[in-house]
Amino acid sequence: MVYVTRRATFSASHRLYNPQLSAEENEAIFDKCSNVHGHGHNYVLEVTVAGEPDPKTGYVIDLKKLKAIMVREVVEKVDHKHLNYDVDFLQNVIPTAENMARAFWKILEPRIVEGKLYSVRLHETENNVVEYRGK
Amino acid sequence: MVYVTRRATFSASHRLYNPQLSAEENEAIFDKCSNVHGHGHNYVLEVTVAGEPDPKTGYVIDLKKLKAIMVREVVEKVDHKHLNYDVDFLQNVIPTAENMARAFWKILEPRIVEGKLYSVRLHETENNVVEYRGK
Amino acid sequence: MVYVTRRATFSASHRLYNPQLSAEENEAIFDKCSNVHGHGHNYVLEVTVAGEPDPKTGYVIDLKKLKAIMVREVVEKVDHKHLNYDVDFLQNVIPTAENMARAFWKILEPRIVEGKLYSVRLHETENNVVEYRGK
Amino acid sequence: MVYVTRRATFSASHRLYNPQLSAEENEAIFDKCSNVHGHGHNYVLEVTVAGEPDPKTGYVIDLKKLKAIMVREVVEKVDHKHLNYDVDFLQNVIPTAENMARAFWKILEPRIVEGKLYSVRLHETENNVVEYRGK
Amino acid sequence: MVYVTRRATFSASHRLYNPQLSAEENEAIFDKCSNVHGHGHNYVLEVTVAGEPDPKTGYVIDLKKLKAIMVREVVEKVDHKHLNYDVDFLQNVIPTAENMARAFWKILEPRIVEGKLYSVRLHETENNVVEYRGK
Amino acid sequence: MVYVTRRATFSASHRLYNPQLSAEENEAIFDKCSNVHGHGHNYVLEVTVAGEPDPKTGYVIDLKKLKAIMVREVVEKVDHKHLNYDVDFLQNVIPTAENMARAFWKILEPRIVEGKLYSVRLHETENNVVEYRGK
Repeated sequence: MVYVTRRATFSASHRLYNPQLSAEENEAIFDKCSNVHGHGHNYVLEVTVAGEPDPKTGYVIDLKKLKAIMVREVVEKVDHKHLNYDVDFLQNVIPTAENMARAFWKILEPRIVEGKLYSVRLHETENNVVEYRGK
Repeated sequence: MVYVTRRATFSASHRLYNPQLSAEENEAIFDKCSNVHGHGHNYVLEVTVAGEPDPKTGYVIDLKKLKAIMVREVVEKVDHKHLNYDVDFLQNVIPTAENMARAFWKILEPRIVEGKLYSVRLHETENNVVEYRGK
Repeated sequence: MVYVTRRATFSASHRLYNPQLSAEENEAIFDKCSNVHGHGHNYVLEVTVAGEPDPKTGYVIDLKKLKAIMVREVVEKVDHKHLNYDVDFLQNVIPTAENMARAFWKILEPRIVEGKLYSVRLHETENNVVEYRGK
Repeated sequence: MVYVTRRATFSASHRLYNPQLSAEENEAIFDKCSNVHGHGHNYVLEVTVAGEPDPKTGYVIDLKKLKAIMVREVVEKVDHKHLNYDVDFLQNVIPTAENMARAFWKILEPRIVEGKLYSVRLHETENNVVEYRGK
Repeated sequence: MVYVTRRATFSASHRLYNPQLSAEENEAIFDKCSNVHGHGHNYVLEVTVAGEPDPKTGYVIDLKKLKAIMVREVVEKVDHKHLNYDVDFLQNVIPTAENMARAFWKILEPRIVEGKLYSVRLHETENNVVEYRGK
Repeated sequence: MVYVTRRATFSASHRLYNPQLSAEENEAIFDKCSNVHGHGHNYVLEVTVAGEPDPKTGYVIDLKKLKAIMVREVVEKVDHKHLNYDVDFLQNVIPTAENMARAFWKILEPRIVEGKLYSVRLHETENNVVEYRGK
């Protein structure tokens, strides 16, 4: 088993806000992250696929193909967007990095057919990272 | 002359949009950067001060003091904000990195009295950087 | 299960020296790391907590809270210190990165009550990293 | 169990090309990576060893020793080389990062006798990484 | 005057070799860099343009346009190539980073018409960088 | 004129303390940096040499030679040392990064005879950098 990882970046806005809570509760929980007009990040996305290298190619999955899947299915839908308003698959989701990583997994997992999706890591800042491995 | 640099980071949203132009012109010039709900970045700010080290301290300026000035005068006003709506000193400014660097210079320059402000660098992404040296 | 990681940094001195060994043995084992007056590093600490995101917040643990625990319990006790002399919980410990990671785990594990501590990683230099996962 | 990692770098050329396939098939699979004269990378190699720290030293394995093994057995054989022509242990191997990581594992595993080899990670570019854990 | 910088990367092979010198002289000067089959790097190219921001756009030059010029005129011609054999504008040039930076300047300078080209920096490895400012 | 830069790293301890001042004054000025037992950093040193590339080699100065000068004259004298006690050329100097950069310049400048020393940059942490250009 070899693990291959592709990195991509995107820039987006978000606001951490739970509409089922009061303004005070949101402020208490999310503090400056609940600023009404939002704030943003340069996200770094790392997707890892596990599998046996194909003897014919030496690849688990051609990373150019993995990149194309990541860009088409995820990056183009979130890059230069406001995650609370502009992204179909994040409707009704509080766009924390945790929830984003799980949403990205759900999209990517069925589309990766060479090897198996092993991990989705999302860096929100240079100090904050989350990882989801599907279980 | 020694040049000392302090680095700080902040996360903010912005929208590139010139209200004096039509929607079509904005779209043509700013493309995805003019998305209505905005997008965001983890900005990296580097402020450089030039001067002679004080023989008593070996410092051009104590970088803890420089950090305090940067945080109080700039970072706290832009971090976790939407630059088009939430920042007094960016009202009526298109918040490109170029304009932000000049606005930060104008704020910082009179407040740095040990050594002289030499440069304000602002990284918008890992691929895009601007620098202003005051002339 | 989602894994969330917070990064922090601190600067400290240490000397690798086992008082139960002779000077020659220390020199043979630790070489330049046993320099009498010590040497130092900018350490990078990464703490990972595993758990289910809370549906109300989307957080495994608020990373601002995790940061506060890390700073109060670890970083403030080791930053700008000599690890052999100034740190209570490292008394009688050879301050290798391995031993430091285990000592940090012991302190942090009982204090993290949202999610569970999963990993403590400590970068001593850009080339040397250790990780402890509690077993 | 503590996991200790040492990082090293090397610069090499390679060409992705399977001699059992036609020129057209190679072009279709490997695209610009099959350029006749090759292309190159600054590879970053990270080797992780797992074990119990020795109470006498606080080390799983002295990272200076691990570095020496990595340099002597791997880095000196691939640094400033063309991986398709100049490296004995890569003869008849398509030098993808996947295959290189497995070849490095095979060399390193028997030579690491303090602790046990746990992982070989190889960064081909800042966006592409592979990892092999021996099974 | 504001200085704006765009970063791009490419992966290439090269061999340092002066055909007007003997094999022994090449070996003495270039050592392992003159390996017959070549070796390679992940180059990082940083291009800086200086100018006044346009009041209508807030841009010195739209960095998406600068990127397009860099990719079309330089990156596509050197990426995944052998610099000694595959690149028209490097024929009869020893492809040191110094000579490459000057060759890139010559190509880019006339094509940048918003602002003026100020600097071409080329990182060959994480430890080696060259910069050319046109005089 | 081309500017070539070589990067090197070293790990050292220091204490910021002016023996001509009282303990209170030292504490007031240097705060936690004056901790009696010292603290330490992973320093990053970048040395830039300016000159015309030699047509025979394409080099301003062979960066392997520049590295050898840096290592022999500076790095070996400060690496794994306490800067206040173990370094001849820093006796009677408060080892701030400013003073260190000037001391390194004084040592390196006469020893660089291909090209001319242009800049000494010293990163004390990821947030603090100083640069000295000799005037």
